[in-house]
Amino acid sequence: MIIDILTLFPQMFTAIMNESIVGRAQEKGIIEINPINIRDFSKDKHKRVDDYPYGGGSGMVLMNQPLFDAMELLTRDKENSKIIYLTPKGKTFNQEIAKSLSLEKNLIFICGHYEGIDQRFIDEWVTDEISIGDYVLTGGELPAMVLIDSIVRLVPGVLNKNESFIDESFYSGLLEYPHYTRPKDYKGHCVPEILLSGNHKLINEWRTKESIKITIERRPDLIAKLFQRDDIDIKGKSKLRKYIEEISNEKKKNF
Amino acid sequence: MIIDILTLFPQMFTAIMNESIVGRAQEKGIIEINPINIRDFSKDKHKRVDDYPYGGGSGMVLMNQPLFDAMELLTRDKENSKIIYLTPKGKTFNQEIAKSLSLEKNLIFICGHYEGIDQRFIDEWVTDEISIGDYVLTGGELPAMVLIDSIVRLVPGVLNKNESFIDESFYSGLLEYPHYTRPKDYKGHCVPEILLSGNHKLINEWRTKESIKITIERRPDLIAKLFQRDDIDIKGKSKLRKYIEEISNEKKKNF
Repeated sequence: MIIDILTLFPQMFTAIMNESIVGRAQEKGIIEINPINIRDFSKDKHKRVDDYPYGGGSGMVLMNQPLFDAMELLTRDKENSKIIYLTPKGKTFNQEIAKSLSLEKNLIFICGHYEGIDQRFIDEWVTDEISIGDYVLTGGELPAMVLIDSIVRLVPGVLNKNESFIDESFYSGLLEYPHYTRPKDYKGHCVPEILLSGNHKLINEWRTKESIKITIERRPDLIAKLFQRDDIDIKGKSKLRKYIEEISNEKKKNF
Repeated sequence: MIIDILTLFPQMFTAIMNESIVGRAQEKGIIEINPINIRDFSKDKHKRVDDYPYGGGSGMVLMNQPLFDAMELLTRDKENSKIIYLTPKGKTFNQEIAKSLSLEKNLIFICGHYEGIDQRFIDEWVTDEISIGDYVLTGGELPAMVLIDSIVRLVPGVLNKNESFIDESFYSGLLEYPHYTRPKDYKGHCVPEILLSGNHKLINEWRTKESIKITIERRPDLIAKLFQRDDIDIKGKSKLRKYIEEISNEKKKNF
């Protein structure tokens, strides 16, 4: 997978992208990440890349010329690149989109800054407008890194067994159960007895119920989604229903 | 505002936090950002900070000792620190939370990695569990940076006039209208005539309508929220209703 990033701050990516799992994926040769400075494509003698917005208003707008020229170069020998503009106007990013983008061969990220980029560039080049959430940031760089991190870890061969993602939040559709490690008693705070029992059937059941409990409490919308999923069969759904009933009965008892 | 970050990858923050608006806010002395290595607090002779989870399963869990000790030091001379753990289980971050956190004096971010941190640490220390969205990342570092970026830009004195945030998506509650800059005609793609008219009343009206249009199309949930807001008066809401009607009539005409 080749990931090109058009940005005014390419150096922001270096430190991040060399660390941790994304860095390892690069070393293994599974992915290649190229931060590219939009300014390098400016034909202006002062290397300007932005200008005032037509119609007035505060902020600046990234000009078409450097972006159009960069895209012509980047897409020259590649087919079907996904060209992603990071913007609050975009579709809200989620694990489904991460999975689908992890199957692509070429991704190009466009990072805007301040007021954004010329709409004609978006109309002409961009295939996907994506937002990472309902909040305002100073630029598209952090959103691009968030997408890259979540996409790259799903590419086969990137994570090792110890980091396997099968049990994780939003992958299974439930929030994660609580974790505990040694010591058993830390300053009077003890690990739940069940986790020390060695009975893996009971431990798994406890964990599933804890996951369902916290999901009901914090994100009931995710529970509703589980019942709509095609990849969970009737047996799975009836087990889920049984757990939900048990949790609700336990609550009544405690009340 | 003092922002402490507990992480296993403090060097990830240096490049990011020295750039752009966050870097400038540090230079101005408005904020202070301290990435702190959790490993520095380990009393283990091999500087280990994680251990296997009780009850089995893949992945590791961050141990209590280094985190408890770090927190005792960091909170010693400070009052009412907000202690934020970045986790998919947390409340989904949004502009409202950013605004409220921008009023705090002391923020401490805890970045987990792999399977997360011991639940007893969360129970004892954490005041807020926050998620930046419904996707899985390799660690809490990028989410911490996202929060810091969106919070810091709201702190008075950080943004200058040109970067003012009044018109932005999620601040006004609508998605942004399209932007255009010179030239008027770029390879046959032209700027909408209205923006060249010089008539600012009409331009503002056009922009508002474009904002409403794209919000209806992409995020109808945001339109619904506008009508529930207390800070928009009856006059504002009836104007919004009028625009929505006009847009819907225009659509019918074009159909």
